[in-house]
Amino acid sequence: MEKAPFVSEAEKKAFWHSTSHILADAVKRLWPDVKLGIGPAIDEGFYYDFSKKEPFIEADLAKIESMMKKITKEDKLFKEVFMTRKEAEKFLKDEPYKLDLLKDFPGNKVSFHQHGNFIDMCNTPVVKSTGQIKAFKLLNLAAAYWRGDSTKPQLQRIYGISFPNKEQLDEYLKLQAELEKRDHRKIGKQLKLFHLAEEVGPGLPLWLPNGETVRQVLLNYMRDLEIRHGYKYVSTPHITKSQLYLASGHLPYYKDDMYPPMKLDNEEYYLRPMNCPHHHMIYKQLVTSYRDLPLRLAEAGSIYRKEASGAAYGLMRVRGMTQNDSHNYCTKAQTKEEIVRVIDLFKEVYSVMGIKNFWFRLSLPDFKAKAKFGGDAKEWEWAAQQIRDAAKDAGLELREVVGEAAFYGPKIDVQIKNVLGREESIATAQVDIMVAKRMNLNFVNEKNEVEHPVIIHRAILGSYERFMAFLIENYAGAFPLWLAPVQVKLLTFTDRNQKFAEKIERQLKDAGIRVESDYSNSTVEYKVRNAELEKVPYVLVIGDKEEKNNTVAVRKRGTAKVQFGVTVQNFIELVMGEVGKKK
Amino acid sequence: MEKAPFVSEAEKKAFWHSTSHILADAVKRLWPDVKLGIGPAIDEGFYYDFSKKEPFIEADLAKIESMMKKITKEDKLFKEVFMTRKEAEKFLKDEPYKLDLLKDFPGNKVSFHQHGNFIDMCNTPVVKSTGQIKAFKLLNLAAAYWRGDSTKPQLQRIYGISFPNKEQLDEYLKLQAELEKRDHRKIGKQLKLFHLAEEVGPGLPLWLPNGETVRQVLLNYMRDLEIRHGYKYVSTPHITKSQLYLASGHLPYYKDDMYPPMKLDNEEYYLRPMNCPHHHMIYKQLVTSYRDLPLRLAEAGSIYRKEASGAAYGLMRVRGMTQNDSHNYCTKAQTKEEIVRVIDLFKEVYSVMGIKNFWFRLSLPDFKAKAKFGGDAKEWEWAAQQIRDAAKDAGLELREVVGEAAFYGPKIDVQIKNVLGREESIATAQVDIMVAKRMNLNFVNEKNEVEHPVIIHRAILGSYERFMAFLIENYAGAFPLWLAPVQVKLLTFTDRNQKFAEKIERQLKDAGIRVESDYSNSTVEYKVRNAELEKVPYVLVIGDKEEKNNTVAVRKRGTAKVQFGVTVQNFIELVMGEVGKKK
Repeated sequence: MEKAPFVSEAEKKAFWHSTSHILADAVKRLWPDVKLGIGPAIDEGFYYDFSKKEPFIEADLAKIESMMKKITKEDKLFKEVFMTRKEAEKFLKDEPYKLDLLKDFPGNKVSFHQHGNFIDMCNTPVVKSTGQIKAFKLLNLAAAYWRGDSTKPQLQRIYGISFPNKEQLDEYLKLQAELEKRDHRKIGKQLKLFHLAEEVGPGLPLWLPNGETVRQVLLNYMRDLEIRHGYKYVSTPHITKSQLYLASGHLPYYKDDMYPPMKLDNEEYYLRPMNCPHHHMIYKQLVTSYRDLPLRLAEAGSIYRKEASGAAYGLMRVRGMTQNDSHNYCTKAQTKEEIVRVIDLFKEVYSVMGIKNFWFRLSLPDFKAKAKFGGDAKEWEWAAQQIRDAAKDAGLELREVVGEAAFYGPKIDVQIKNVLGREESIATAQVDIMVAKRMNLNFVNEKNEVEHPVIIHRAILGSYERFMAFLIENYAGAFPLWLAPVQVKLLTFTDRNQKFAEKIERQLKDAGIRVESDYSNSTVEYKVRNAELEKVPYVLVIGDKEEKNNTVAVRKRGTAKVQFGVTVQNFIELVMGEVGKKK
Repeated sequence: MEKAPFVSEAEKKAFWHSTSHILADAVKRLWPDVKLGIGPAIDEGFYYDFSKKEPFIEADLAKIESMMKKITKEDKLFKEVFMTRKEAEKFLKDEPYKLDLLKDFPGNKVSFHQHGNFIDMCNTPVVKSTGQIKAFKLLNLAAAYWRGDSTKPQLQRIYGISFPNKEQLDEYLKLQAELEKRDHRKIGKQLKLFHLAEEVGPGLPLWLPNGETVRQVLLNYMRDLEIRHGYKYVSTPHITKSQLYLASGHLPYYKDDMYPPMKLDNEEYYLRPMNCPHHHMIYKQLVTSYRDLPLRLAEAGSIYRKEASGAAYGLMRVRGMTQNDSHNYCTKAQTKEEIVRVIDLFKEVYSVMGIKNFWFRLSLPDFKAKAKFGGDAKEWEWAAQQIRDAAKDAGLELREVVGEAAFYGPKIDVQIKNVLGREESIATAQVDIMVAKRMNLNFVNEKNEVEHPVIIHRAILGSYERFMAFLIENYAGAFPLWLAPVQVKLLTFTDRNQKFAEKIERQLKDAGIRVESDYSNSTVEYKVRNAELEKVPYVLVIGDKEEKNNTVAVRKRGTAKVQFGVTVQNFIELVMGEVGKKK
């Protein structure tokens, strides 16, 4: 959406909420017996809850939309109407849910909104007249308990969306369709990438072989790159005694996001919500002098955080995740240069991942909300300045926002625009000026004095879960060759060609190519179609001609054209070349 | 030890316990005021606890040994002596700890052992005469609370060992010295391989960069190998809701070994003690028909088990570990063949790891201890027979033992002899005939009937922790080139050569070789010695001559000879060749 359809959040909410009045009016005109629940605006659009003896069916939605169209054409003004509690009770005597709401309403002056003959108890802003709602659509039907309470009656909820004009509505619906097509949860199921099992728990994804392969390619890519850039990989446990999190500050500052403790040997053990304290223990083993700095410890570290179970969403919002994490310990004098290196690494990775539109956001604390941030303002300002200077050196624009820092220092969020133009936080880096002191991490400087290191926490890919969700939606599941779980699929025309195909399969595997085969008795057309649905980058078809000439027929994903007579050696070179270029 | 020094466990215990009598006699002759505690035989040797006003010092041990020698030369007979409780109380009136023990002693007939003039309350078998104890050594001094209770007085414990002849003692002491030299905990510290932090918790190792590198080489080796053998890698969370462990049988059968639960959202979440149930959830996503079998799911799966905190021992006995785990799901008809494949894989891996002396132990349940084993005996017998048949096909000897099966089927333990000739369990495989039914894992067979798969659980390297402990001790830290954390160390004679050395360092790194450098101002001799202590396989020394001729001087670990004038290209080829051969 190039131009926003609404000038403000308030205007948008009033617009959507007004549409719910029109929806309720339409339903009452069609089925006067229906009882009304509530009809708020929500994040995207609005809904209205109804109680109807014969439940709505999908076909009713079109009927209701027609009636709504009529109401908007009438273009009646919205008017505010007030009643005393007594008057309101009398007026609502046949609306048991409204009466239930009225009970919670304080005072004696009850506010209503009226358009035409329809009057609804309501104290939320509405638009001027029904005629303003020029474009709307009812999206779907769902069941909902009254007041979200499963002991109360079940109502039917109708969801909808509306805009000031039809172009905006069309654009919205097109975007929704594209979103649905690219939904990583749907594609994750189709391509067997991951699975969320009720029995395991919300937000705890299981990586199926296909998804694990992509994840591993990403892990290996990051590991190789980071080691080339002077990082050292470590591996640390997923739990620790509470004393470590007391020392690090996690228990005082971060407990709400942590899983509850396990009690053992008169100790409390916690699942880790971050990898930092474990890395800090390793720092203590490896560093004594300034000569040991900078030390860059990296880990594909699995962590667990107590997201509200309802907030879990595919791979985007999870409770168990693996971070592409690292902690770079350095002297004050090295800090700026170390941040520049981190920024350079961000740039290198994002260029490989095809992320062009990204920018950095510097989050500083709101020092009024003092409780959440330790240390003094001067240290925070010093850290923020290092980031600003580093960004300048790296030629990077930095947008500053207030109130979202980590509890141990200013935070850099890397923001991207995804394929649908939506802004997302994809990765973070923090400059930690607090924890080294708190945890007694030291080194001896050139002057033989004991100092604390600065710690840069950074996760270039963020979590592998979130990054995978981004990649799946970005590529709509059609991963580039170097990431594709299956890179090549081998198909045979008939049983006759299977032996030859198996030989080729072995050659490709030996070359390190991820191959699958389909030697079943189905038709080649059917098998090709399957491979396309599986989004395999290359399909090789083997028939008698190929076997005779010792070649393969190559079909590239998304093209109908087949290249015949390619030697296996040439095909391997083609694939390896593309993989090497991370295409 | 070729021939065992003792014919039975009972004889050994009597021998060691008798030596503790002689130790106590010697101490009383030297310091009559000392009060006696207890003096049992233990797993290796014996100890005696004493209360002495001026604590023993190390030098006392030699004095005591001399006196013990005298006592053994006297060759007095051990005699059993009985006293009534009253007589015993009177006899022990100056031995408060013995009197304390006497309180717990039931009945009126108290048993003593006497040799010469020394009489000790004791009802444990002893040898015939003190002269039999021909060879002994006092090993060390330690503090010990009376009855192991920290509220009671602290005594001094003297540990010792003894044998029927001097050769046996010498052999034992030599083995102990070798054990100490190879102790993976000591080497792990020296080579910075891993760290056990008090703050994190017992049995929860942190892998330092050097150790993590070796671990990763092993992980990659196993992953590549397993994928070549048709395994599919997955990745699953470390926790799950209790309902999964109720279904799998872990909660009824394995709870004692699990960490306590975390309570969240009215659910109990458990850290996983095994990876199986998570893999079973993936099976359900991937398998519908017999055509989908066999399915081999592999994972480097981290698990947590509640070993008693005192039992934690380096990397050998840990609470947090990562298994080289897999679950192979197959039909009944495929079971034998699948076990043969597993055995073949065992053989391939062990040959690469230089493990020559290994054999398989088949553990079957003691069906009298019924509670621990589900299912009927016929199914267990069928599974055991598959293993026997497979072992026969694979030409493998199988030793059968009773009572140690897994709760879901017979267990194969892979036993090895380590470098010191000691037997260890290094890996396991289980044939699971229970859990598929219990967890409702199904497939449709050729006749369109619903069946449960057989599940082979196997961990070829066991846990990476335990396997690393084995490797460290096997190689005494001097890992072969392909496993070495640092493969090549570059040293310079003077600052002049640093630039040239850095160019070579880059070339080696680009070739994928793990290189470190030491360009400090220390002498080359000092730097070489450091590299030897770090057990780096190749040291390259760079001086003016090398720089002028564009070559390196190569020094192989453990040899004093230096090969001069080697081109970098030739050196890279040498290294890559050795790594490729896993030497």
